[in-house]
Amino acid sequence: MEDKIYSVLRQITAPEHGAEAEGKARLADLTKPPGSLGRVEDLALTLWRIQGRLPLAADPARIYTVAGDHGVAAQGVSPYPQEVTRQMVLNFLSNGAAINVFCHTAGVEQMVVDAGCLGETFAPHPKLIARRIKSGTADFTQGPAMSRADCLRCLLLGIELAESAAAEGIVCLGTGEMGIANTTPATALFCAFLGLEPKTVVGPGAGLAPEKLEHKAGVVAAGLALHRGAVAGKDPIAVLAALGGLEIAVLCGLVLGAARARLPIVIDGFISTSAAVAALSLAPQARDFCIFSHGSAEPGHKLVLEALGVSPLLDLGMRLGEGTGAALGIFLLRCAANMFNDMATFSQAGVSGRE
Amino acid sequence: MEDKIYSVLRQITAPEHGAEAEGKARLADLTKPPGSLGRVEDLALTLWRIQGRLPLAADPARIYTVAGDHGVAAQGVSPYPQEVTRQMVLNFLSNGAAINVFCHTAGVEQMVVDAGCLGETFAPHPKLIARRIKSGTADFTQGPAMSRADCLRCLLLGIELAESAAAEGIVCLGTGEMGIANTTPATALFCAFLGLEPKTVVGPGAGLAPEKLEHKAGVVAAGLALHRGAVAGKDPIAVLAALGGLEIAVLCGLVLGAARARLPIVIDGFISTSAAVAALSLAPQARDFCIFSHGSAEPGHKLVLEALGVSPLLDLGMRLGEGTGAALGIFLLRCAANMFNDMATFSQAGVSGRE
Repeated sequence: MEDKIYSVLRQITAPEHGAEAEGKARLADLTKPPGSLGRVEDLALTLWRIQGRLPLAADPARIYTVAGDHGVAAQGVSPYPQEVTRQMVLNFLSNGAAINVFCHTAGVEQMVVDAGCLGETFAPHPKLIARRIKSGTADFTQGPAMSRADCLRCLLLGIELAESAAAEGIVCLGTGEMGIANTTPATALFCAFLGLEPKTVVGPGAGLAPEKLEHKAGVVAAGLALHRGAVAGKDPIAVLAALGGLEIAVLCGLVLGAARARLPIVIDGFISTSAAVAALSLAPQARDFCIFSHGSAEPGHKLVLEALGVSPLLDLGMRLGEGTGAALGIFLLRCAANMFNDMATFSQAGVSGRE
Repeated sequence: MEDKIYSVLRQITAPEHGAEAEGKARLADLTKPPGSLGRVEDLALTLWRIQGRLPLAADPARIYTVAGDHGVAAQGVSPYPQEVTRQMVLNFLSNGAAINVFCHTAGVEQMVVDAGCLGETFAPHPKLIARRIKSGTADFTQGPAMSRADCLRCLLLGIELAESAAAEGIVCLGTGEMGIANTTPATALFCAFLGLEPKTVVGPGAGLAPEKLEHKAGVVAAGLALHRGAVAGKDPIAVLAALGGLEIAVLCGLVLGAARARLPIVIDGFISTSAAVAALSLAPQARDFCIFSHGSAEPGHKLVLEALGVSPLLDLGMRLGEGTGAALGIFLLRCAANMFNDMATFSQAGVSGRE
């Protein structure tokens, strides 16, 4: 498994920058003041660097909402009971969740992945990819969240999901997740990979009471202390196995797989960003395939995005996850592609340029 | 005409706030942590206050892109020749402009209004509403931009456009505009209505060279000085006639007409905001029908929105106008409506609440 993953990492190369001038020339030739579509023009250039030919395409797009449970929930870091992970998976499958509505509204296909839920396996469903690696992680304050082998399995599953999407003609991916307590492993990963302090990154997640934030920071700090060997080492997979989550590791693989398949991948919020950070630790050259859709209301996200040097597209005070921000980001990417493809040039439209 | 307009103003009442608790209760009952969809939940509440019944609807939606020319262009405040207004109207009609692409992508109907272009009238076109009030405004540094009668005609046209949209079953409106040099009258209106200084509000518009900004601020200041009587008075129509634009006055009427017809109206960027400011001077109770879609890259917009106490939905560095920001805003409004209508409640989905 290890070999397979390193072979994927070697196959990831940054999108071709050779055509950059060509992309910019086209943008300048469209009937609008140069640069006047701001970030939408940036998105078109990102897509141009990845695809390098007309028409640019953001469709069909697919979001994978990956679910997993977390042993660290035992530490009282979430106000919701763990059974909600499973209940929400069922809600995704019956189209009752926010991500279903957002995907439907944005014209994005959604697939749900059971990578690590607790309890019985789910009945087969056309939207469900039942690939449980393990029934929940272990509590990272007591030992590693998962074994290295399980972490590698998760990464390979994510890579495989990207690959099969590409084979089915999907041209744009998005990340989403569900997992009660998963802001805690995400926070731990940010601290481990970016050298941030638990108490500055920690936040309420789905709604932890303010008086429990210090406790949550302490739980993260305990995990970082227990796994200080992994944190200090040069092996991102060891960090991910020690402190991550099954759904987070799958999404890390999805980012790697997307970059390998040369697909843009729209990153959702706080948790998905932790998966992207792990992926970029393994393959920094995957960076320009990642489109960070929105800044989460989870307060640490701002710090994290600053540390990454990323300015997200949207800032709508959302903090739901599931892929809801990614769905909105994919809509913007579609606007960018259509703008680049379909606008008239100054000469086509007979519009005068600057005097 | 005056009477007709004042009668419309009297018919505008704020959206019913009585049902607010009911709207919030529904949002709290949907399967997501309370408030976790941020501004999207705010949008749903705005729509709920306006419509007050399920299902909330953002569709069908229509953007009116209203075009007009500006006498003040003679003062060298835009790097583009005036003929571009006309050329861009033709571009809108042949679907070559950014607004065409954005409306198409966002599933929004677009109509183009010639309210005041220079030159020959346009050939009939199914997307064109040919209702030119006057061929361009006069230079406001030399006299009023338009007569009071023409300003009233523009307001009535805007009101009529909202009315006919409502009669055709449109449930959401958006504003858009085209008019070479129109950041100059918009800046003058902001200064007049909000008491801001020309040199703090003035910006490059479609791309004025930095060394010409002081000149542009001087042009605005000259207009404010010449029309100081109107500016100091209590009559918003006099201000709009003295310093505004034909397309701006029509959009002002559109905002009033939308509020009268109890339709949400999504406000585009810098120029459209000046029309909204004029409308809110006439009818402050129209406020909650206005959804400010995006913060423009035109630097003064930030100041203006702060003065209005408005936080726009999007901040994508756009500064194109035409209704491009409104189209994106309408998409978000649709997400909000669908979320409110279609998400499962905790009890429907069998999802546990907080512990």
